[in-house]
Amino acid sequence: MRDAWQNLILPDLMQMVQEDDVQGLAAFCGVVHPASVAEILEELEDPQVWRILDQADDQLRVEIFEFLSLKRQTELAESLDEKRLSHLLEWMSADDRVDLLSRIPEGRRENALRLIAQAERNEIRRMLSYDEDSAGAVMTSDYASLPASITVLDALARLRQQAPDSESIYYVYILGENRHLEGVISLRQLILARPETRLSEIMKRDPIRVRVTEPRVVAAEMLGRYNFIAVPIVDDSDRLVGIVTHDDALDVVQEEATEDAYLQSAMAPLEDTYQESPLFEILWKRGVWLLFLSFVALMNAHVIDHYRGTADSPQATQVGTGLSSLILLFLPLVMASGGNAGSQSATLFIRMFALRPSAGRGSSNLVNDLPLVARELLIGLCLGSALAFLDFTVAWLWFGRSMYESSVIAATVVMVVTLGTSAGSLLPLLFRRLGMDPAIMSNPLIAAMIDVLGVILFYEIGLLVLT
Amino acid sequence: MRDAWQNLILPDLMQMVQEDDVQGLAAFCGVVHPASVAEILEELEDPQVWRILDQADDQLRVEIFEFLSLKRQTELAESLDEKRLSHLLEWMSADDRVDLLSRIPEGRRENALRLIAQAERNEIRRMLSYDEDSAGAVMTSDYASLPASITVLDALARLRQQAPDSESIYYVYILGENRHLEGVISLRQLILARPETRLSEIMKRDPIRVRVTEPRVVAAEMLGRYNFIAVPIVDDSDRLVGIVTHDDALDVVQEEATEDAYLQSAMAPLEDTYQESPLFEILWKRGVWLLFLSFVALMNAHVIDHYRGTADSPQATQVGTGLSSLILLFLPLVMASGGNAGSQSATLFIRMFALRPSAGRGSSNLVNDLPLVARELLIGLCLGSALAFLDFTVAWLWFGRSMYESSVIAATVVMVVTLGTSAGSLLPLLFRRLGMDPAIMSNPLIAAMIDVLGVILFYEIGLLVLT
Repeated sequence: MRDAWQNLILPDLMQMVQEDDVQGLAAFCGVVHPASVAEILEELEDPQVWRILDQADDQLRVEIFEFLSLKRQTELAESLDEKRLSHLLEWMSADDRVDLLSRIPEGRRENALRLIAQAERNEIRRMLSYDEDSAGAVMTSDYASLPASITVLDALARLRQQAPDSESIYYVYILGENRHLEGVISLRQLILARPETRLSEIMKRDPIRVRVTEPRVVAAEMLGRYNFIAVPIVDDSDRLVGIVTHDDALDVVQEEATEDAYLQSAMAPLEDTYQESPLFEILWKRGVWLLFLSFVALMNAHVIDHYRGTADSPQATQVGTGLSSLILLFLPLVMASGGNAGSQSATLFIRMFALRPSAGRGSSNLVNDLPLVARELLIGLCLGSALAFLDFTVAWLWFGRSMYESSVIAATVVMVVTLGTSAGSLLPLLFRRLGMDPAIMSNPLIAAMIDVLGVILFYEIGLLVLT
Repeated sequence: MRDAWQNLILPDLMQMVQEDDVQGLAAFCGVVHPASVAEILEELEDPQVWRILDQADDQLRVEIFEFLSLKRQTELAESLDEKRLSHLLEWMSADDRVDLLSRIPEGRRENALRLIAQAERNEIRRMLSYDEDSAGAVMTSDYASLPASITVLDALARLRQQAPDSESIYYVYILGENRHLEGVISLRQLILARPETRLSEIMKRDPIRVRVTEPRVVAAEMLGRYNFIAVPIVDDSDRLVGIVTHDDALDVVQEEATEDAYLQSAMAPLEDTYQESPLFEILWKRGVWLLFLSFVALMNAHVIDHYRGTADSPQATQVGTGLSSLILLFLPLVMASGGNAGSQSATLFIRMFALRPSAGRGSSNLVNDLPLVARELLIGLCLGSALAFLDFTVAWLWFGRSMYESSVIAATVVMVVTLGTSAGSLLPLLFRRLGMDPAIMSNPLIAAMIDVLGVILFYEIGLLVLT
């Protein structure tokens, strides 16, 4: 998912790493935006990444590091000894640090924390204790704060001291005794006010705040509703404990949209992005749901079987021996399996595109994404086989169908599920390639197409095996 | 969707409006956050809204107005004469103004624009010309800019003058000849720098920018990727034409997630929120897709019919007279109709909750949302009837089924679709009420349940009518 210019820069960078060109690497880190450096580092080997990052000073190194994906951060942190890890942690911002630590095994985490100063360690432990869906889990404690009694002139002087440690100085929180939140002043207000004005005269009292235990989506909602750059987070005694900033809100909204899309297509949310997730995790999080939905569909076959026995005329029950009878019972199952697996694939691809709209519009990126389509094909085969095994067993042992008939069902399910995952991944890709919204390849449309293919396959395989 | 405190304040506010308590109303507008005032005004009558807004000064009035939903803004604008409308437009920020104008009928828009100064009018016309999905359509032209040659001290003085007209002064853009974008300086940098430093020494050169014709999602992606508060938007000659700010990015991301969710559940995106959208628009945007998907499912029935003729043994074709034969042909259609309609309802409710996570967790809000469930029931009846009419006609005239048999299909489709929309809306609501993620009530799960109900209904209605 690299942009074109990154592919241009990569050979030069690798040459600098091989030649140990310290000055060249330092210049690279200093000139390119940290987020862009991080994107290039994302796909290099651990030792190469550290070779490059070591040429940046502590602050810049951490800034680049924090722009890496959480998965890559975790891998890199594992390649460090405890002393270097704790040094890195000391420099990291409070919110990113907690995200990283929550991914590190507890033993190693404790060893690294032991090397960090007591006060900061307590702070980290407190942040680690918040529920991962709460405002506390996305907030940072690196905010700017001042007392109400000082003047604007003093405030600006003090802000200059706080600025390096604050994630945002555009909102300054006014705290009373015990860090009690009394008001807020924007840097804009400070710049516009007369220097001798006291903060208490111009501060906005009783600002909108979010409780640390409230869901993180509520913090994001407040930022969106009031167009804030940051929203203050308070504990039960109304003491300021952190802020959630605009960039966190954007991450939260994207993550929640992805989670909802996954859940709605019957998948458990993934830990990392789809591209980064290991095959086994994807199989597991999709397979469990598909198996469950197959059970519901098998119940359906049972209901049809029941009615078929009582509803039809004596002659018509002859259908019991024909292929159509088999299909009547198990077609809903076949259709649901193929449609659901296809929906999962389509949702994964469409969310992947939604998270990186700037990438993959050119033709070269079609090729870049083809390995993912191939992986979907493999996933389809695995999931299809698992479902086929279930369906074969149930059809044979529970419904008393012959082994031949049960094999027809199993073979159809494998093929339909594989077709579903292939179509679900390939069609959004092609639509995007054509400059159209990939989401038009909606789940019901893919399901409808798989339905038709399912009927044809079911009959053709049935005719082949049973006659 | 009002919060509890808003319901408390409303009676007092209405009394002030009735008693024409000018001072009380002015105090209300001045003390409560404009976004909160807007939420209360959202559901009042036009004359009441203007009575209240007229007590605020021009700037505050427009600020509150801009926090109203676009639908409400349009309605209120229609209640103004052209002189007052153009006065309102003059005070509005560039991006919100364009959104509003794009909703006003062209004749009226031109009349109002005629009263606005030439330069501003040209600016508005230019902004109106950008594609609605482009970065140009979400940017604002109210940015702060300075030349590179001045000192930090001068810069701060000039910023104080620009501040009232700028949407954000936290990033200041450095422009060369012809508004060519040369660099960017953050207010944080300005505060930290020595007063005599020249901006050219500290500005970040060649900042990341987005072309005005690029998709708006790309602008939002850049804000997210680099944690910017705003991103500069340039034209083809690299001249600065606007900025997209963090709050716009959040709106874009939410709107795109909603659009994708709708498309993925086979619905055309709505103009406004689900709650605000008129019944007819919802029916149309869901119905067209459902009818199209029904055509695909009818094609499926045709395929089954074809195979049934050739695949089964002569005795087994006796099924042609039984109820199971009818069900074999049309069950995929019935299931698809119910499942798809249910998916649409579930998606609408789940996105509604995702956009307002803070609302509706209490029990009182269950009651608030019940009218929406009732509306879904009505929608289900309407959509179900339309689909049933199509299915009846096709089954009777194309498949040559008897009128009784065709009626069975039609009656089943009406009931299954209505059940689908009811379950699709009610289940997410209940799950949310139980404190769980409503998205767990996934579309495939609702579809699976509707499948089982569909089979039972199909057989029961068939037994009732045909025997």
